[in-house]
Amino acid sequence: MVTDWKSLATAKRDAILNSIPENWRLPKIPSAEEQKDVTGPYIQQFLDKKEVEITETDAVGIAEKVAAGTWSAVDVTQAFCHRASLAHQLVNCLHETFFDAALADAKALDTYYAEHKKTKGPLHGVPVSLKDQFHVKNVETTMGYVGWIDTFEGKKGDSRQKTYESEMVRELRELGAVLYCKTSVPHTLMSGETVNNIIEYTWNPKDRYLCSGGSSGGEGALIGLKGSPVGFGTDIGGSIRIPAAFNGLYGIRPSAGRLPYEGMANSMDGQNSVLSVVGPLGTSARSVTFLVKSILSQSPWLYDPLVMEMPWRNDQYQRVWDRVNSPTGELTFGLMRTDGIVNPQPPVARAVEMVVQAVEKAGHKVMDWKPPAHAEGLATTFNTWMYDGGKDVHSAFALSGEPMSQQVKMTYGTEPKPEKTASEIAQNNVAHRQWKKQWMDAWNATASSTNTGQPIDCIIAPLAPYAAARPEKYKWYAYSAFVNGLDYTSVVVPVTYADKSMDKYEEGYKPMNENDQAAYEDYDAEIYDGAHVAIQLIGRRLQEEKMLAIAEYIGQILGKESIP
Amino acid sequence: MVTDWKSLATAKRDAILNSIPENWRLPKIPSAEEQKDVTGPYIQQFLDKKEVEITETDAVGIAEKVAAGTWSAVDVTQAFCHRASLAHQLVNCLHETFFDAALADAKALDTYYAEHKKTKGPLHGVPVSLKDQFHVKNVETTMGYVGWIDTFEGKKGDSRQKTYESEMVRELRELGAVLYCKTSVPHTLMSGETVNNIIEYTWNPKDRYLCSGGSSGGEGALIGLKGSPVGFGTDIGGSIRIPAAFNGLYGIRPSAGRLPYEGMANSMDGQNSVLSVVGPLGTSARSVTFLVKSILSQSPWLYDPLVMEMPWRNDQYQRVWDRVNSPTGELTFGLMRTDGIVNPQPPVARAVEMVVQAVEKAGHKVMDWKPPAHAEGLATTFNTWMYDGGKDVHSAFALSGEPMSQQVKMTYGTEPKPEKTASEIAQNNVAHRQWKKQWMDAWNATASSTNTGQPIDCIIAPLAPYAAARPEKYKWYAYSAFVNGLDYTSVVVPVTYADKSMDKYEEGYKPMNENDQAAYEDYDAEIYDGAHVAIQLIGRRLQEEKMLAIAEYIGQILGKESIP
Repeated sequence: MVTDWKSLATAKRDAILNSIPENWRLPKIPSAEEQKDVTGPYIQQFLDKKEVEITETDAVGIAEKVAAGTWSAVDVTQAFCHRASLAHQLVNCLHETFFDAALADAKALDTYYAEHKKTKGPLHGVPVSLKDQFHVKNVETTMGYVGWIDTFEGKKGDSRQKTYESEMVRELRELGAVLYCKTSVPHTLMSGETVNNIIEYTWNPKDRYLCSGGSSGGEGALIGLKGSPVGFGTDIGGSIRIPAAFNGLYGIRPSAGRLPYEGMANSMDGQNSVLSVVGPLGTSARSVTFLVKSILSQSPWLYDPLVMEMPWRNDQYQRVWDRVNSPTGELTFGLMRTDGIVNPQPPVARAVEMVVQAVEKAGHKVMDWKPPAHAEGLATTFNTWMYDGGKDVHSAFALSGEPMSQQVKMTYGTEPKPEKTASEIAQNNVAHRQWKKQWMDAWNATASSTNTGQPIDCIIAPLAPYAAARPEKYKWYAYSAFVNGLDYTSVVVPVTYADKSMDKYEEGYKPMNENDQAAYEDYDAEIYDGAHVAIQLIGRRLQEEKMLAIAEYIGQILGKESIP
Repeated sequence: MVTDWKSLATAKRDAILNSIPENWRLPKIPSAEEQKDVTGPYIQQFLDKKEVEITETDAVGIAEKVAAGTWSAVDVTQAFCHRASLAHQLVNCLHETFFDAALADAKALDTYYAEHKKTKGPLHGVPVSLKDQFHVKNVETTMGYVGWIDTFEGKKGDSRQKTYESEMVRELRELGAVLYCKTSVPHTLMSGETVNNIIEYTWNPKDRYLCSGGSSGGEGALIGLKGSPVGFGTDIGGSIRIPAAFNGLYGIRPSAGRLPYEGMANSMDGQNSVLSVVGPLGTSARSVTFLVKSILSQSPWLYDPLVMEMPWRNDQYQRVWDRVNSPTGELTFGLMRTDGIVNPQPPVARAVEMVVQAVEKAGHKVMDWKPPAHAEGLATTFNTWMYDGGKDVHSAFALSGEPMSQQVKMTYGTEPKPEKTASEIAQNNVAHRQWKKQWMDAWNATASSTNTGQPIDCIIAPLAPYAAARPEKYKWYAYSAFVNGLDYTSVVVPVTYADKSMDKYEEGYKPMNENDQAAYEDYDAEIYDGAHVAIQLIGRRLQEEKMLAIAEYIGQILGKESIP
């Protein structure tokens, strides 16, 4: 078996491709040289006019059209299955398709609608894609591991295999969502690029020289190509936000305990110092809001032991709109241009300035923010990923004997390292909590410098030093990961596109250290030209409502989010 | 130094006693044989009429009287300092007194009141006692360790020694509370009895053959003797609820993340699978409610990284009252008479039946509740206390060379055991979460058996197999500890008194196992006669408002809580 990983991987790769209906297959896949950008007109040529219209509508719009009876759930599902099939062929973004089940579900929803003259729930007829950590009945979950093929999370003969469903899957079905595909991930989930031995590499549809991000890279690429209006990823170090940013999407990293992770596959399950969280990515900020709000309407705290009873707090969401619509409702933004270790590459630095200018022009205040004890906090955060010395992930590779990708080797090495003991873990946890306390105190202290007498509302920061990474060059996780360490709420907002005519390092730029040197060397204005560029807005812990409202608002003033 | 622990302990013990003003010293302390019960008339004889009136008023009543200008904060403080001094002499319940600082604070509050014609905050002039884990400026924190004397948590020369204050201390001061003493704990905090080498043993004031409970046993004994109207304890396995139950008090174990633990001393700090939580004990349910509500008014989530943004939800509190005041507002109680491993001793079994009868008589429904996977859940819970094999607590003893009490040896042995590794911890955490999920599912499933169509509202259960324990006989922690494992909300409600004429094991009782045998043998109707007997009401996670309302209501229908 150990020698057989290649044929297992190839068979699975072929099976994914073969699950796509013949009439949706593309005769030829162009190379990146031939077709760098496969979004927009390129992919549209394979779709009819109605399919384009449907798939280029955001989740809120789709829900409205289906609720109004304008579109049937079947038509919508069909269109997204088609476009997702094209997307996979162009950028390798799917692990599983289950179009027949999706169409059957859509048909049942249409029947329900016809009979009851109302929708089943707020997501009635909305296709939702899922990262390949969700368990869906009759569908495999490999999480990119060859050794997980034909098992339940690596366990042979487990009765849950293809029968068990994750809690959020149940909730999405209750809400009327249509589930139709699961998207690619890097094996281990611990990478900012999406690579594994099954689908190999998920490319960025806007710039196929670049990665789609990770670990929810399949989601990013699929939604970026509008093969899905909205989908769920997970994030322990940036894994929702990186693919959102690299694909011109909105995406939220909620605080832990807000949305239900119950019953999902994961890496290093049971490490409970810095938790992976689940959250949506979508083509509009309002659709990300819509999904968060919809899930919370299902009272997930009654079904997931880690979710706290915190329904959607519309007053907090509305308060932001009331403020920005009032002449005295000034918002205050902290500004973290750089983490002082690796400066953002020119496109990202420019995006940050664009946001600063936009919010200042809209009458808000921006003040510098220096993250307290940044290096120490990063260390206690990264330590949590290595508590077990890589035992869990190395065991998963050992199941099939498949090799670890270079991107993952960077973190986990070729062999497991010694495990941490309980008291070493406790010591790290204490230091980690003390760092969080320093942040709270520093954040509270800003009240003395704002015009409002209140602390800053959120922080504008790069999400990564890169607009997107070139293969094997995603190296600096700190911009996204420190937010996981803090367990703060962060929303990615797409800002602009890389532009080789503007985005250049200043003449004679002197890198600060070898990490900064790497980012400097890995930038190439020609390759990056046209790529999406985004930033993140970081709010305090459990500020999902507030941060989604601010993200929608920033989207509007940047002209990226339509005013509803 | 290692040989010197005895003189250090003696000196500290003498210093506590000597901190009591001479005119409050008792010439002779009666033995338990001479005076089993030192509550009520016994202690009242040493107080004047006004002192008795003040100290026998609950926290809500005190706040009202001070706010109305009827009593001054100084008068109230003076009365409680006096009664606390008597209490300590009778049952060894204090680790620290700071009466002068308290009187100065009280005076400042009276001045504030006179100047502003209003109170500083809702707790204006209310004395609040604190378990000796809270750091208070100018006051030592030993947590019962001889090795912590003249240090900051065992560290010599740390600048925080006697200068640092715990977050909740800051909040209590903001609220206008008067802090005046810190109460005894068992060294390690991991015991249902309160024993250490400094104060030796904290006795139960209602029955001085019995313990006061632990680990917040000083709080229990002090408040039980009305030397404090309300105080804060902590609870990782029952440590708030055991002393509350054993001293005829109300006490709440809130879910983790509701009230601020930030900046308190602790054992095994950084173990984050089952967290110790902080919560109040008081002479009335409404005063416990009052304290929780007051602390939440301080937005502790802005100052403690572990507290979630969840203000006092008065609608949830009020909903209970609306239901019980409505003819159709039936509540449903699960009933867990026994855990099936150790049956409660006769007084506790009778108290459970009294509550069942009272709620049924009031028109509510009681249905049997069988805790799912109880043994497995207990194991994963108790495992968390031993992740470090006892390294942390053994190190604390090693600081001075003092011996470990028998009660603590039961858990931690004479030598540290091997530490758990990261992957062993993760595995336990996963099993622990799965057990929590089983509970959620079972709780949800009760909806199909209730008259309301809703799941049960809470569970009636023993808090311990004992009304209180005889020295070295607190052995079975499961009744309280499984609630910590689940992170559920639990409120202790005092019910009755042990009565030798009624409380007997049935003729020919056959213990189920050796644990049950021990509980059976440790019961003595004569010794227990007159002791407080309580039960706990267990609600789901983060149901503090609901559970406090139900506890108040049950107190009323039992005739133990006055109707406001």
